[in-house]
Amino acid sequence: MADMDLDVVGIGNAIVDVLSHADDRFLAAQGLAKGAMTLIDAARADALYRAMGPAVEVSGGSAANTLAGLASLGGRAGFVGKLGHDAFGEVFRHDIRAAGVDFATPPATSGAPTARCLVFVTPDAQRTMQTHLGACLELGPEDIDAGLVGRARVTYLEGYLWDPPRAKAAFRKAAALAHAAGRKVALTLSDSFCVERHRAEFRELVAGPVDILFANEAEICALWQAADFDAALQATRGHCEVVALTRSAKGSVLLAGDELHVIDAAPTGQIVDTTGAGDLYAAGFLYGYAGGQSLRTCGRIAAIAAAEVLGHFGARPETPLADLLPAGLGRRRPHPM
Amino acid sequence: MADMDLDVVGIGNAIVDVLSHADDRFLAAQGLAKGAMTLIDAARADALYRAMGPAVEVSGGSAANTLAGLASLGGRAGFVGKLGHDAFGEVFRHDIRAAGVDFATPPATSGAPTARCLVFVTPDAQRTMQTHLGACLELGPEDIDAGLVGRARVTYLEGYLWDPPRAKAAFRKAAALAHAAGRKVALTLSDSFCVERHRAEFRELVAGPVDILFANEAEICALWQAADFDAALQATRGHCEVVALTRSAKGSVLLAGDELHVIDAAPTGQIVDTTGAGDLYAAGFLYGYAGGQSLRTCGRIAAIAAAEVLGHFGARPETPLADLLPAGLGRRRPHPM
Repeated sequence: MADMDLDVVGIGNAIVDVLSHADDRFLAAQGLAKGAMTLIDAARADALYRAMGPAVEVSGGSAANTLAGLASLGGRAGFVGKLGHDAFGEVFRHDIRAAGVDFATPPATSGAPTARCLVFVTPDAQRTMQTHLGACLELGPEDIDAGLVGRARVTYLEGYLWDPPRAKAAFRKAAALAHAAGRKVALTLSDSFCVERHRAEFRELVAGPVDILFANEAEICALWQAADFDAALQATRGHCEVVALTRSAKGSVLLAGDELHVIDAAPTGQIVDTTGAGDLYAAGFLYGYAGGQSLRTCGRIAAIAAAEVLGHFGARPETPLADLLPAGLGRRRPHPM
Repeated sequence: MADMDLDVVGIGNAIVDVLSHADDRFLAAQGLAKGAMTLIDAARADALYRAMGPAVEVSGGSAANTLAGLASLGGRAGFVGKLGHDAFGEVFRHDIRAAGVDFATPPATSGAPTARCLVFVTPDAQRTMQTHLGACLELGPEDIDAGLVGRARVTYLEGYLWDPPRAKAAFRKAAALAHAAGRKVALTLSDSFCVERHRAEFRELVAGPVDILFANEAEICALWQAADFDAALQATRGHCEVVALTRSAKGSVLLAGDELHVIDAAPTGQIVDTTGAGDLYAAGFLYGYAGGQSLRTCGRIAAIAAAEVLGHFGARPETPLADLLPAGLGRRRPHPM
């Protein structure tokens, strides 16, 4: 068996975020579904970019944000995702490697551009995302390496991978390889609209290969078509080894068999932008989990990591997250490089 | 005479900033002059980018930041600067236009890339800048249009233009056209190292065509080789119609003939990144000046605009600056579009 020298290998869409402020009137005028991630084609992406205010570019992608956060906590991470041969691709590759994440997926050969997500942040700090997947459509099972998956305690998959058709096959292959190597498979449901698009298959995944499930309140309600959080919680019982359900300011709920924990949100200053809060929650949780911490400790680390990105524009940490952990809270010795 | 429908036309280097956090040890290991803007070639820019941490991309350029700030206050601005035919060029063009600034300079034809400035922000919020000028080296007098200059009350020039050799001729042409049209010429000294490189010529400009001068404490001391701020202030007297000298937390000093004002810095929260504070000070000042405000009011608007960018990463405002002006402080009716 290969060395298990990584905590998490993540597979996701490799995206550069283009962030701007906008008001509700702009969202309405453009017909954007507030708070959701919507897929758009190249022509729509260009038109929307022309209408967008001054922007900031920063590497994103849900799973990639999680791995950057995990590395910032001191964990060891690898990422698999498809870039184009272009300047945004160079930006993404630079940023994920500079964050300390292993990344070696070959770029797309078709000339498709690196995926862009136009993020509109409203004054209530909500983010509305419009994604052109571009090169991400080319991620396929050939990009999944058994050696890499075998090296990681957890293989982490984003629900958004169910949108590009070939990535679904990559996802299934990675999950099978992880289990064959005796590792765990984690999934985030990503977005309630994404759950609506793929509900039947997501239910099969949750009943089948997924060991660790992440979802927010809207997503878990969408999965079970539940009327409220408690109904969704009851429907979730008995599925997966661990389920982490996030509830914004209400904190999170962790389920594992008969064990249930309610974890408070970590204190935040002014909330500037909620982009990435769920991604960073998963980072903190998986950092604790891979380090063998108790569920409760995993949840507390997750809350601290999520709180950091709420305080600034963008979905990747600006502060080394390891510095934010109180003494004794799951802090590990840095891995030898 | 053409309509005077612009407050300010600015001429400067068109740059995309690549911002990252770094510590003093990194600056020392890389041999970077802390707090300064240093010019680097393409190979050095690539090597330094490889060594840089995860970054954020945002449009920059000193004069361009000033015009974006002026537009954010509700002023009318135009910009002249040279981009490459590439993704970073598209980002810059999008952002300056989305800020409401007129921009129509044709891009470089040589294939040179859009200028990049690698900005290293240390924990003390100081920025250390390493700039590869790329396409900016092609800005020349042919890019200066008499009609555009004649439309603006003030032609604003950045001292950094003295670095690329052909831009110097563009600068002189713009100043001559502005005066021929009965307009004012403003200059920022940009950077103390830039002043060291061009001291004799900068002294001639200050004694000659410059009506409005902006400098910080280090720059004005470098210009006159003065031992302290008071000595530099005395050396400045008698030059230019208006001189605005910024002193960080100590506020600013405005000189106009026998008139002298000491303006307090505006209150700030935590100072995150000083990139752009001088650029936004000039934005606020020129907004007031073009609106016919008193020197004291110009200085107070300048201080408010500068304070906004100190509170976040990057050199362009994240909040509409017009919303930050107290009632009665130089606020103008929006221009008809």
